[in-house]
Amino acid sequence: MGTSSAEREAMARALALAATPGVPFGPNPRVGCVLLDDDGRVVAEGLHRGAGTAHAEVDALSQVDDALLRQGLTAVVTLEPCDHTGRTGPCSEALLTAGVRRVVHALPDPTEAAGGGARRLREAGVEVECGLMAEEATRLNRGWLHGLRHGRPFVTWKLATSLDGRSAAADGTSRWVSNAASRRDTHRLRGLADVMMAGTGTVLTDGPRLNVRDEHDRPLPRQAQPLRVVVGERPLPGDAAVLDDSAATWVTGTRDLSAVLTTLFEQGRREVFLEGGPTLAGAFLAAGLVDEVVAYVAPLLIGDGIPAAQGLPFTSITDALRLDVLDVTTIGAAPETDVRLTMRPHEKEA
Amino acid sequence: MGTSSAEREAMARALALAATPGVPFGPNPRVGCVLLDDDGRVVAEGLHRGAGTAHAEVDALSQVDDALLRQGLTAVVTLEPCDHTGRTGPCSEALLTAGVRRVVHALPDPTEAAGGGARRLREAGVEVECGLMAEEATRLNRGWLHGLRHGRPFVTWKLATSLDGRSAAADGTSRWVSNAASRRDTHRLRGLADVMMAGTGTVLTDGPRLNVRDEHDRPLPRQAQPLRVVVGERPLPGDAAVLDDSAATWVTGTRDLSAVLTTLFEQGRREVFLEGGPTLAGAFLAAGLVDEVVAYVAPLLIGDGIPAAQGLPFTSITDALRLDVLDVTTIGAAPETDVRLTMRPHEKEA
Ligand SMILES: NC(=O)c1ccc[n+]([C@@H]2O[C@H](COP(=O)([O-])OP(=O)(O)OC[C@H]3O[C@@H](n4cnc5c(N)ncnc54)[C@H](OP(=O)(O)O)[C@@H]3O)[C@@H](O)[C@H]2O)c1
Ligand SMILES: NC(=O)c1ccc[n+]([C@@H]2O[C@H](COP(=O)([O-])OP(=O)(O)OC[C@H]3O[C@@H](n4cnc5c(N)ncnc54)[C@H](OP(=O)(O)O)[C@@H]3O)[C@@H](O)[C@H]2O)c1
Repeated sequence: MGTSSAEREAMARALALAATPGVPFGPNPRVGCVLLDDDGRVVAEGLHRGAGTAHAEVDALSQVDDALLRQGLTAVVTLEPCDHTGRTGPCSEALLTAGVRRVVHALPDPTEAAGGGARRLREAGVEVECGLMAEEATRLNRGWLHGLRHGRPFVTWKLATSLDGRSAAADGTSRWVSNAASRRDTHRLRGLADVMMAGTGTVLTDGPRLNVRDEHDRPLPRQAQPLRVVVGERPLPGDAAVLDDSAATWVTGTRDLSAVLTTLFEQGRREVFLEGGPTLAGAFLAAGLVDEVVAYVAPLLIGDGIPAAQGLPFTSITDALRLDVLDVTTIGAAPETDVRLTMRPHEKEA
Repeated sequence: MGTSSAEREAMARALALAATPGVPFGPNPRVGCVLLDDDGRVVAEGLHRGAGTAHAEVDALSQVDDALLRQGLTAVVTLEPCDHTGRTGPCSEALLTAGVRRVVHALPDPTEAAGGGARRLREAGVEVECGLMAEEATRLNRGWLHGLRHGRPFVTWKLATSLDGRSAAADGTSRWVSNAASRRDTHRLRGLADVMMAGTGTVLTDGPRLNVRDEHDRPLPRQAQPLRVVVGERPLPGDAAVLDDSAATWVTGTRDLSAVLTTLFEQGRREVFLEGGPTLAGAFLAAGLVDEVVAYVAPLLIGDGIPAAQGLPFTSITDALRLDVLDVTTIGAAPETDVRLTMRPHEKEA
């Protein structure tokens, strides 16, 4: 059957809705929905705002009056409509009740509880298409999908490094290894996670705030901030910047990385953004707990200094951790360009 | 007046001719020339093959018969035609004698002895245009231009590094930090230099051949090989691979980098390709003697290991050597992509 260009545009919009900043993450998938009339015009938009709130399809349908519904709309949605009664009723039913004639979704719902919506709709005579922009939708929900499979959050390790692999100079100074555009880009990525993680070493040495700030260096609202998590046994002083009231903070008091990830998962957290330092990053890498690496490589040579990762248990080149490159982007205006590499450990699945 | 698209194509071809592999470098500029008839058709091509041989314009003109010359040709040439009698006569005169009506050249000749050709041609009624593809022509002749200004060869430092700034693992193994495509690309760049340089440390440890090889790992003909130069006080064993007969070799027996560069310059060498190791590279960097840096960054984490450059005299981030990025290119097929950064020390001119 295929999909129309109006449907493709609507899916791009639905993905953007699903990724609305400030929507709490939690254990639910991120879903956006766009309703189209027969001429491909956008009739309504909806999104899911987290556990206990309306699903994206219902959110969109609630904005449409009966006259429009009677025309028989097309629903473009980033995830297969659910077929399950949780805190809200099944979306499949809501779509049928609203007389929707066609459903285009990006991903099948892999959960046993909620899956089956597409079949139910088809059986009721609705046209159903699956797979439009599936790659983008997978990326958007990688934390949720990863959690379903592995029972722990998706961990992204971010490093800022000089060309010679240093994240700070020998005297500890690191302002600025990466350029202003990379630092802004980092805040964008922080804002896509629901946990900001660092080791006690970094927190005690640098006193970072570990929150998400806008281009004027102002923190986003507290409810849009990831949980700040400090890993390590040492206690923090009460006036540590990471304990300010801009965001919630969990001082774990442990070095047990699996236990920390499990607890975070149980609290509904799905995306960890790990910003170091080198010792904690090395421990995560050595334990095989890094799912994605984002490296900002800055064109400078620092010489002796603090390496980006420490304590990696490799001695020979054949042990080295190989990464698959997903994306290479230059960040900032030439000639002060950083290069951002987005990578995945070679052995890990998508 | 402007230039035609036929002239732009001819200039691209003239630049390619000037860069013909196997043409000895020597102290002369690399020059290519394409002759066009009135309809913009290519009538002849020429290039300069090194000191004592015909200049590119004369090389091209020698292939054209009188009938064609009488039409009044256009000469497209990468450098301003010379106006000076050296081992060959002035090109300006050769062009006038041949009845050329129009000359398009990329760069003015900055030398006192040879400059002035454009003026002489204009005074004789020839249309002269300067500046077409000047950037490419500057790059092609950067060794020659650099030598005119600084009295020493242009030095390119190439490094192959992991994401964490290592050029080899802790046990010294380094096969393969960079991918096959990067290694091929390195041979291409070696072939653009007239000196291949390394320190005694690398030569004694790794036994490299330091020659230019084709895609089947066969060395290019001896006359197309850069001079191999080993820097350091230690003597080499007679059976060192770098002393094989695939190319000429100079074992300097010294650590005095300026003296080495001066001698090379006096021998007519203009482009040094420095491949390490870390100690020699660090010494070149610390002395401000690196003019361009080509880094192949491979997506792997090696952990403790041999850094790409050693002995850099920086302790604070403000001392770090900042590089301007000229180009970023991914090398090799995803996901095993290396990233090649071409850079110039911030304070250096073009
Ligand atoms: N440029 C960058 O991207 C960047 C980013 C971050 C940090 N840095 C730099 O890194 C430096 C701090 O280095 P660091 O290595 O001390 O920082 P770190 O990695 O943040 O902290 C290290 C500490 O983490 C704790 N830890 C928790 N789990 C662990 C485990 N499984 N294994 C080992 N240790 C564990 C240990 O502390 P306990 O003893 O408390 O258990 C350890 O001492 C600072 O100078 C900072 O500027 C740079
Ligand atoms: N992956 C890569 O791109 C790459 C490239 C090259 C090498 N490597 C690795 O690097 C390792 C060799 O390291 P290395 O540092 O010993 O090699 P190196 O830099 O090639 O050689 C160091 C030696 O150069 C001499 N030298 C000459 N001029 C000098 C100066 N101005 N200052 C100081 N020393 C000067 C000294 O030897 P004398 O005592 O003889 O004077 C010094 O010991 C090998 O394991 C090799 O695999 C990796």
